[in-house]
Amino acid sequence: MNYNEMLAVAFAEAQAGFNEGGVPVGAALFDADGKLLSRGRNRRVQDNDPSVHGETDAFRKAGRQTSYRDKILVTTLAPCWYCSGLIRQFNISTVVVGESVNFTGHLDWLREAGVKIVELNDAACIDLMSRFIAQSPQIWFEDIGEGCC
Amino acid sequence: MNYNEMLAVAFAEAQAGFNEGGVPVGAALFDADGKLLSRGRNRRVQDNDPSVHGETDAFRKAGRQTSYRDKILVTTLAPCWYCSGLIRQFNISTVVVGESVNFTGHLDWLREAGVKIVELNDAACIDLMSRFIAQSPQIWFEDIGEGCC
Repeated sequence: MNYNEMLAVAFAEAQAGFNEGGVPVGAALFDADGKLLSRGRNRRVQDNDPSVHGETDAFRKAGRQTSYRDKILVTTLAPCWYCSGLIRQFNISTVVVGESVNFTGHLDWLREAGVKIVELNDAACIDLMSRFIAQSPQIWFEDIGEGCC
Repeated sequence: MNYNEMLAVAFAEAQAGFNEGGVPVGAALFDADGKLLSRGRNRRVQDNDPSVHGETDAFRKAGRQTSYRDKILVTTLAPCWYCSGLIRQFNISTVVVGESVNFTGHLDWLREAGVKIVELNDAACIDLMSRFIAQSPQIWFEDIGEGCC
């Protein structure tokens, strides 16, 4: 499984979100053979919709699946509680994380629940997210439910 | 605060979902004064969208909020991990739960995170959900990411 190629799909979503002025978190869902099922990105700004994180957008766009135990979710940024809860509830087996520098997420909580976590510590993901947080901190903190500024 | 009146709004959503053939979980978001901000229901069946639980639908429909620390989320059924993660990430202060008999959820996890939980143990919520699970177990288990039948 080429996790870096899979991350490139999620990163393209994040970059598109950044170009739209949105929170640059992208995600993609793959099956056990590495076939792309769906891709998505955070749309808080674009759609004025706080429920659409990168992970939930990719999850939605894959439609109804009988099981996620053989699915791989790739995300550019460590998942927040909302998206970690999604992963745990639907028993997504593997999560590939672009970076956990700008947001640490809850990777140990997922590991303890039996989720395989693959951390890529990707420089491009770190750079894009840090640029966004620097330029739009109020949107970023709104997106994770924290007060700001 | 009249929590039973608030639950009636969420229950009307659940009943509408049941009548549509959907998973009958409804939710509503209120501000600190008890003013209704939004209402929603599970739409897995209706929209073929696995990302729309009752709680996430109400959250979405309230639009972008600066803070949820003064908000009250009312739901007919104890929240799953996905919706519990939403509550925790966005620091929703109070969650009113219609019932936790058909699905126990993770209420202690939320309490430990500082969320005020109000359990109403409502007979109508219990009855509606149990009828749905009995008639459509495969949809119910799909909705919580469990294998079935």
